[in-house]
Amino acid sequence: MREVFHQSLEDVQDRLVEISELVTTAIEKATRAFSTSDVTLAEEVIESDIVIDEKAIALDELAIEILARQQPVARDLRIVVSALRISASLERMGDIAEHIAQLTRMRFPERAIPKGLKTTFTQMGQLDVDVARKLTELLRTQDLTIAEELRNIDDDIDELHISVFEKVLSDSWQGEPAATVDATLASRYHERFGDHAVSISKKVMYLATGDWTTDSDDSFVIPGATP
Amino acid sequence: MREVFHQSLEDVQDRLVEISELVTTAIEKATRAFSTSDVTLAEEVIESDIVIDEKAIALDELAIEILARQQPVARDLRIVVSALRISASLERMGDIAEHIAQLTRMRFPERAIPKGLKTTFTQMGQLDVDVARKLTELLRTQDLTIAEELRNIDDDIDELHISVFEKVLSDSWQGEPAATVDATLASRYHERFGDHAVSISKKVMYLATGDWTTDSDDSFVIPGATP
Repeated sequence: MREVFHQSLEDVQDRLVEISELVTTAIEKATRAFSTSDVTLAEEVIESDIVIDEKAIALDELAIEILARQQPVARDLRIVVSALRISASLERMGDIAEHIAQLTRMRFPERAIPKGLKTTFTQMGQLDVDVARKLTELLRTQDLTIAEELRNIDDDIDELHISVFEKVLSDSWQGEPAATVDATLASRYHERFGDHAVSISKKVMYLATGDWTTDSDDSFVIPGATP
Repeated sequence: MREVFHQSLEDVQDRLVEISELVTTAIEKATRAFSTSDVTLAEEVIESDIVIDEKAIALDELAIEILARQQPVARDLRIVVSALRISASLERMGDIAEHIAQLTRMRFPERAIPKGLKTTFTQMGQLDVDVARKLTELLRTQDLTIAEELRNIDDDIDELHISVFEKVLSDSWQGEPAATVDATLASRYHERFGDHAVSISKKVMYLATGDWTTDSDDSFVIPGATP
């Protein structure tokens, strides 16, 4: 019985890693599709989001079943409870990757990336992929030094997010309203991955410490605006 | 022992209602502050978001304690598991209200509402308050007919969200880039409350049915844009 139990807990953790890998692929493809206007790649992301959704539901159902049948306590309980919260964040990261892909598809054959922002969005996309890879590693190893790395990359993403708004609100900005809307939404989407990763890393820390902290919101409201 | 147990479960449900009431107040004040450029009201919202965060953490901790000590099964377990998910959505709704308040404060003494969109945002704000009130009622009564009403209001909010983008992308739009950014972000924030409410209502349905569904994302990526 106890062996079956520990098998289930390992299964929970393996599935989190699996979903995180799928999310990493979605982010990698979505940000690349966006920066290269690759509509085929964008469609792949849109079509495969359902897989992430289904795996997140299946994981939640497994977690609830473990709670009902095996009534875990202490660290075992923390594994299950944190998995329920982490799955929701991963699922949301998949949705945001899909949003970026939809933006790409909607503008095709035009470019979704507004002129003058290609370098910035390419950099943001690379950092987003970096965040997702490190997050997967964190979920696999539970090495808490990675949590600190995630916070640092999130800060770098925030800086690029601010720079998008500085550009859009500068005198030199020549973009049409549609380009301004695209830059605003795309930057907001690119920026959210880091927030979710930091939020998940707090739940991984909870596994070790038992300290349940809030998902305090580190996202920017409207960067680059003069107060 | 069983009496203490049922007392705790009632406590979980009462606290969800309490947090939902606080979120309703935050949304009411934030949307009013935004549409009237009331910076004092905006600051109230920003300062009081911490209360929502703290109450959400305390509720999560109570839920985890119930899981550890009382090992609920069947519907009792569903109450606790759904509360853990609902608290996260309510907490996020509080964050979004805070974002709207921050947008208001950042533009003050200028108006945050772009010219020509005052009526639309006022209507969206009223629907957001309506959503939050009905959500509180749903959490209090678990009357599932309210879930249907929430979906309908969410559809109305989505229509207004689309109309904001139609306006901003139309030839008649005279707004500066800053106004376009504000309209884009503010509309996105106003639109998200309905999504979260619908997502929470699915978790209330789970209480009755035991059917755990995903928080499928009904938000719009970039409405009003030509495909």
